[in-house]
Amino acid sequence: MAVEGGDRDYVQSLERGFAVLLAFDEDLTRPTLAELAAKTGFSRPAVRRLLLTLQRLGYVANDGSRWTLTPRVLSIAQHYTATRATIELAQPHLLRQAERTGESASLAELDGHEAVYVARVPVRRIMSINVAVGTRVPAYATSMGRVLLAWAGPETITRFLEEAEMRARTPATVTDPAELRQRLAQVREQGFSIVDGELEEGLVSAAVPVRDAGGRVVAALASSTSAGRLAPEKLVEQTVPILLETAAAISADLGYDATVLPPIRDGFY
Amino acid sequence: MAVEGGDRDYVQSLERGFAVLLAFDEDLTRPTLAELAAKTGFSRPAVRRLLLTLQRLGYVANDGSRWTLTPRVLSIAQHYTATRATIELAQPHLLRQAERTGESASLAELDGHEAVYVARVPVRRIMSINVAVGTRVPAYATSMGRVLLAWAGPETITRFLEEAEMRARTPATVTDPAELRQRLAQVREQGFSIVDGELEEGLVSAAVPVRDAGGRVVAALASSTSAGRLAPEKLVEQTVPILLETAAAISADLGYDATVLPPIRDGFY
Repeated sequence: MAVEGGDRDYVQSLERGFAVLLAFDEDLTRPTLAELAAKTGFSRPAVRRLLLTLQRLGYVANDGSRWTLTPRVLSIAQHYTATRATIELAQPHLLRQAERTGESASLAELDGHEAVYVARVPVRRIMSINVAVGTRVPAYATSMGRVLLAWAGPETITRFLEEAEMRARTPATVTDPAELRQRLAQVREQGFSIVDGELEEGLVSAAVPVRDAGGRVVAALASSTSAGRLAPEKLVEQTVPILLETAAAISADLGYDATVLPPIRDGFY
Repeated sequence: MAVEGGDRDYVQSLERGFAVLLAFDEDLTRPTLAELAAKTGFSRPAVRRLLLTLQRLGYVANDGSRWTLTPRVLSIAQHYTATRATIELAQPHLLRQAERTGESASLAELDGHEAVYVARVPVRRIMSINVAVGTRVPAYATSMGRVLLAWAGPETITRFLEEAEMRARTPATVTDPAELRQRLAQVREQGFSIVDGELEEGLVSAAVPVRDAGGRVVAALASSTSAGRLAPEKLVEQTVPILLETAAAISADLGYDATVLPPIRDGFY
């Protein structure tokens, strides 16, 4: 996405505030001011001012010399969810899909070169796929990402194939732009994507498109499993029909009427 | 929480950036710059600079004259989750609890006067309780909130009873500080909280404390249902034992050893 406006339009302290907030992670759960300064590269007085502001806004708290994020940080994400009808409407359908398939059900959207989980219903398994809402996965190596790319339009696909960094996550990963372009055409042709062990060995997933009232693909609905539990052929036979039904139900809730506006496969519609 | 530092330590543009981000909601899903200026009360040039900065950071995108949040906003919440071992550790236990009870399982933390859902496993129901991670509910009228308050320590309880605005959400809501103090003592005494129709008519919930390695109550584990589905007495008989088992398992994963550090009920420990 092109950035409009020059540097005069850039609010540096806003960028820095986010940098401090995002400096908290699994390796830095209760940092000191000095640790945050080291991680962000900002001066201690700058970090202190940002922390005090974030504290007044309720996003961080301090406990002696250590700082922590507060659960108020979670409410920022809710504003995204509130603006997307898809996510709330999909919830009961995801629950039903998880029940029918016995596998976790996920909904993802495209953001740059990645697919982002925007809703998920987990299912308990000894070996379960541990992802949370907000998790980002590379679009080129996942069934959700390929579905989102497949219908993103010719310009987006061409730009993606030129710009995205595609590395072999496993020996099976497709990293050749021409081959990926072909796979995307195949996804549009067949109406779903299956990816077998391209992101991680033994991880196989299926995804289908969810359409809005205008017929635009706005999300990918997916089911993932371990190859040991369900062979890719079985996924096509058993899981894909359930995914297609679920996606049709979500799309209908979003106002999509396939009889009025049938999906045009070659026009990327 | 007291704010340290004077106004010199306050970064106003950071506050304003958050105000613009949080102005997007279910009523303003694709606002124009003018709509955002009206909602935040900031000038259009100020809102424009903040939007261009948020766009460069990847949190908003524009589509002609309209602006939208991007799924990147979801990743901010992940930083909170990553800093809290409780949330990830609790996940498989919540799934198992939801299976055993047939009801949604929730984990909450205290933030100010509210309990915030930090993890949740939903269960499909005709009448299901629609809450997402990040949802905030008043601590005084919910079982999760009462558990979190009960063990928050005498000073926090006293301050809460003095400061929190408690209104009768239903005819059953306890709004008298002295009565609530008694209820909290009872929660500590019995080791769990049951709230029947105090937040919403027909909504009944049970909650128990989750403790960290030091024995501190760090979260409340809850199960909610409609009173029509399960009478409060049945909740005590059937659900509370499962909640206590689940909370013991999560607490054990967090390093709590009840044989070494038994919960001290009267000391609020």
